Amino acid sequence: MAGKSDDLTHLNPEGEVHIVNVGEKEDSRRVAIAEGWIEMAPETLERLIAGDLKKGDALSAARIAGLMACKRTWELVPLCHPIALTHASLELTPDRARNAVHCRARTETVERTGVEMEALTAVQVALLTVYDMCKAMDRGMRIDGVQLVHKSGGRSGTWDRDCQPG
Amino acid sequence: MAGKSDDLTHLNPEGEVHIVNVGEKEDSRRVAIAEGWIEMAPETLERLIAGDLKKGDALSAARIAGLMACKRTWELVPLCHPIALTHASLELTPDRARNAVHCRARTETVERTGVEMEALTAVQVALLTVYDMCKAMDRGMRIDGVQLVHKSGGRSGTWDRDCQPG
Amino acid sequence: MAGKSDDLTHLNPEGEVHIVNVGEKEDSRRVAIAEGWIEMAPETLERLIAGDLKKGDALSAARIAGLMACKRTWELVPLCHPIALTHASLELTPDRARNAVHCRARTETVERTGVEMEALTAVQVALLTVYDMCKAMDRGMRIDGVQLVHKSGGRSGTWDRDCQPG
Amino acid sequence: MAGKSDDLTHLNPEGEVHIVNVGEKEDSRRVAIAEGWIEMAPETLERLIAGDLKKGDALSAARIAGLMACKRTWELVPLCHPIALTHASLELTPDRARNAVHCRARTETVERTGVEMEALTAVQVALLTVYDMCKAMDRGMRIDGVQLVHKSGGRSGTWDRDCQPG
Amino acid sequence: MAGKSDDLTHLNPEGEVHIVNVGEKEDSRRVAIAEGWIEMAPETLERLIAGDLKKGDALSAARIAGLMACKRTWELVPLCHPIALTHASLELTPDRARNAVHCRARTETVERTGVEMEALTAVQVALLTVYDMCKAMDRGMRIDGVQLVHKSGGRSGTWDRDCQPG
Amino acid sequence: MAGKSDDLTHLNPEGEVHIVNVGEKEDSRRVAIAEGWIEMAPETLERLIAGDLKKGDALSAARIAGLMACKRTWELVPLCHPIALTHASLELTPDRARNAVHCRARTETVERTGVEMEALTAVQVALLTVYDMCKAMDRGMRIDGVQLVHKSGGRSGTWDRDCQPG
Repeated sequence: MAGKSDDLTHLNPEGEVHIVNVGEKEDSRRVAIAEGWIEMAPETLERLIAGDLKKGDALSAARIAGLMACKRTWELVPLCHPIALTHASLELTPDRARNAVHCRARTETVERTGVEMEALTAVQVALLTVYDMCKAMDRGMRIDGVQLVHKSGGRSGTWDRDCQPG
Repeated sequence: MAGKSDDLTHLNPEGEVHIVNVGEKEDSRRVAIAEGWIEMAPETLERLIAGDLKKGDALSAARIAGLMACKRTWELVPLCHPIALTHASLELTPDRARNAVHCRARTETVERTGVEMEALTAVQVALLTVYDMCKAMDRGMRIDGVQLVHKSGGRSGTWDRDCQPG
Repeated sequence: MAGKSDDLTHLNPEGEVHIVNVGEKEDSRRVAIAEGWIEMAPETLERLIAGDLKKGDALSAARIAGLMACKRTWELVPLCHPIALTHASLELTPDRARNAVHCRARTETVERTGVEMEALTAVQVALLTVYDMCKAMDRGMRIDGVQLVHKSGGRSGTWDRDCQPG
Repeated sequence: MAGKSDDLTHLNPEGEVHIVNVGEKEDSRRVAIAEGWIEMAPETLERLIAGDLKKGDALSAARIAGLMACKRTWELVPLCHPIALTHASLELTPDRARNAVHCRARTETVERTGVEMEALTAVQVALLTVYDMCKAMDRGMRIDGVQLVHKSGGRSGTWDRDCQPG
Repeated sequence: MAGKSDDLTHLNPEGEVHIVNVGEKEDSRRVAIAEGWIEMAPETLERLIAGDLKKGDALSAARIAGLMACKRTWELVPLCHPIALTHASLELTPDRARNAVHCRARTETVERTGVEMEALTAVQVALLTVYDMCKAMDRGMRIDGVQLVHKSGGRSGTWDRDCQPG
Repeated sequence: MAGKSDDLTHLNPEGEVHIVNVGEKEDSRRVAIAEGWIEMAPETLERLIAGDLKKGDALSAARIAGLMACKRTWELVPLCHPIALTHASLELTPDRARNAVHCRARTETVERTGVEMEALTAVQVALLTVYDMCKAMDRGMRIDGVQLVHKSGGRSGTWDRDCQPG
């Protein structure tokens, strides 16, 4: 249930946007994990996998794009704080059962504010890059299920998707 | 079916990535439309709508973030060509039936290469920004159904999602 | 009076520019407030206010532009240190008495160097954005009185414009 | 007088911001000139001039900062079109009579949209850089009179500040 | 011999920097090729090759970094014009005879100004990335022989290193 | 000799790239010095020196470009951590004996990770800028000997090129 402390914190009392004051918060180790899928035609997936087996370049381009983008999250999302990530990793896994590529990103910092947006941005841009690499053969691909999986650290503590009520 | 001309065009004959040569293509008017959703708890959506009715700032921040990001698509997606957009617009519409906010972006240029990636990037970053604005009250939001709706212009002509087979 | 310690500190003994060494300074809470005006024709201001009352989008675009730009001050101003802002806010207020919009920005960090440049950059880019939004009806607008109002924190302590000799 | 054609063109019929469609416009040679001042204490100006006579580095840093920033105008101002400048120049002139440094920037392109924002951005960032170079000795400096001086090209033709009424 | 037409064209008559006016030039197809080496200890090269044979990721990260950087040349080099590349490719080849990795980049555009700086930037950043990937085992690596190999198009015509005297 | 602890640390056990976890490292004062040369025809060097004596602008543009670029190293090099430099300086010295300009950059931070890449990036971009300033008269210039000279701080301690076995 959304109580008063769960307000849209990026709006000030006049309802105007601002970058939330975190100066009073303490540095703490913060981790976030996000995931998402890009669904595609079976033959697109097979071509992608074949390309990957030969050279690894298509998924590797997407992996690097995601890692580079997550460092720039605060340039893209207006009210995100600039943050110095201490770690980022990202996996892209073809999933034949779902006709999709699964992406999972993990970000970490030791700062006053969390890294959920950084993990989500890594996933979004990695999946966009997969789309770009394959769009000449399949314009109908769809990015789906981009969501936070886990966060820990900071005043709000740990959150796990698996532990949420149904 | 994926034939030879449907190859992963960003890989050269050695399977290495490169920025595809479009120098021989002619300038043409090109349009792309993309869409996506962010699903959230009903009370989050109500708070967002209430905030919007009062000041419009939350959705308006997301709209501007999407418009600004689509101009920088080529900085984020490794093999995208730099492009001078001649138009971009973006709508964010709360959808109570789906407990979601719907985003639809339209981009246009008069250049040698298409603007599908720009429209998709606009949607992705606008939805990320909605996530950021609301995450203090709802970490479980999910970005879904990000996809191309329409493209026209260029050698490959017009593509409409609605006209695709099943 | 400008004494020796008031030198142009961005020049080294050979008169060459460098990014001043702040490694020996301690982290401290630092705040800056800056302001400025954009003056315009009375009918432009009325249109802007009318637009604002309907949807808030014009001033809200300027507010977001200012907030986003202040995070990138160190990319724009050659000798500014990269800095992690812990807070930024920005107000834009139509002022019929002066036929102008007033902008006031507040920035804060807990670092080794001050945030005056960040507050001034927020004001400059917010006012540029107002110009951009209104220029089709009024090319004669003028940006005026962009200045520091207050700073605190750091070795040089607190400075207030109001307390300066006339 | 502000008529219908003088509307706030960045708002669509619903009052929402968008990047105006210029796809129908023709490429044309477009020029803009903007100017502005930064006013300072007389001893600050003398130090700046003395530094300049010795090495030229302080004003030269500001000149380069302004030239680099104007190429990135569209990253800073949300609804500006990305544009390929074909020319940019910028002068900074100490003005002892006014206790100020005067800045004048000229930008040019051959595109579908004007370069007024680029010229104004060059002036704004150059003056910010002068502030940064001198702020250790004079926090009270003020940026004033930033305005368009001239524009030509495009459908709206030539505009000169000197030819405006009163 | 350097005659008058060979001047430092980025300086105006007063010796001040500016972005050269290319508005009068015509669009033409322009190509540039640049190359460079990074020399390293033999065991570093063997590790790099072994890593490459297994997964291709180290050199592939460098290749993508070079391609992404060349699109941003005008952000890095103060007086470069913003340019829309129509093609970019980049090869990295281990060279056991020289204990080095060789990099060769090719850039192309159809614009008013050349792409030599873009090709050189691609090489520089790709080699920097190789350094970054290997620096934990070899800090003594050296980047050498970064140079233009070929350019064509534009008023100054074709230039080939192999055809130069001496 | 390269032992196990000297691995390519940017690859995880699966050989995939990631941004190395430095969260467990402690902040420490870290310094890096890098250098490099750009070799040119004797008459190019004389013109550059003459220009420098008159106005200083060509080398001063390169110096500022290098300082600005080193702050953005993490945007260019995919696996570099974002870092807040506390100091950066850069010298460019014409060297008639070698027909070259020598560049030397020094960077410093108080963080969890080193600043070698930042010093090397400063050198690379400063030398690129010299190339850009002079290319109209000399396309054959060559960038050479870009290398780390010194690093200190962090777990791996001090490294000096002069103390390496020949």
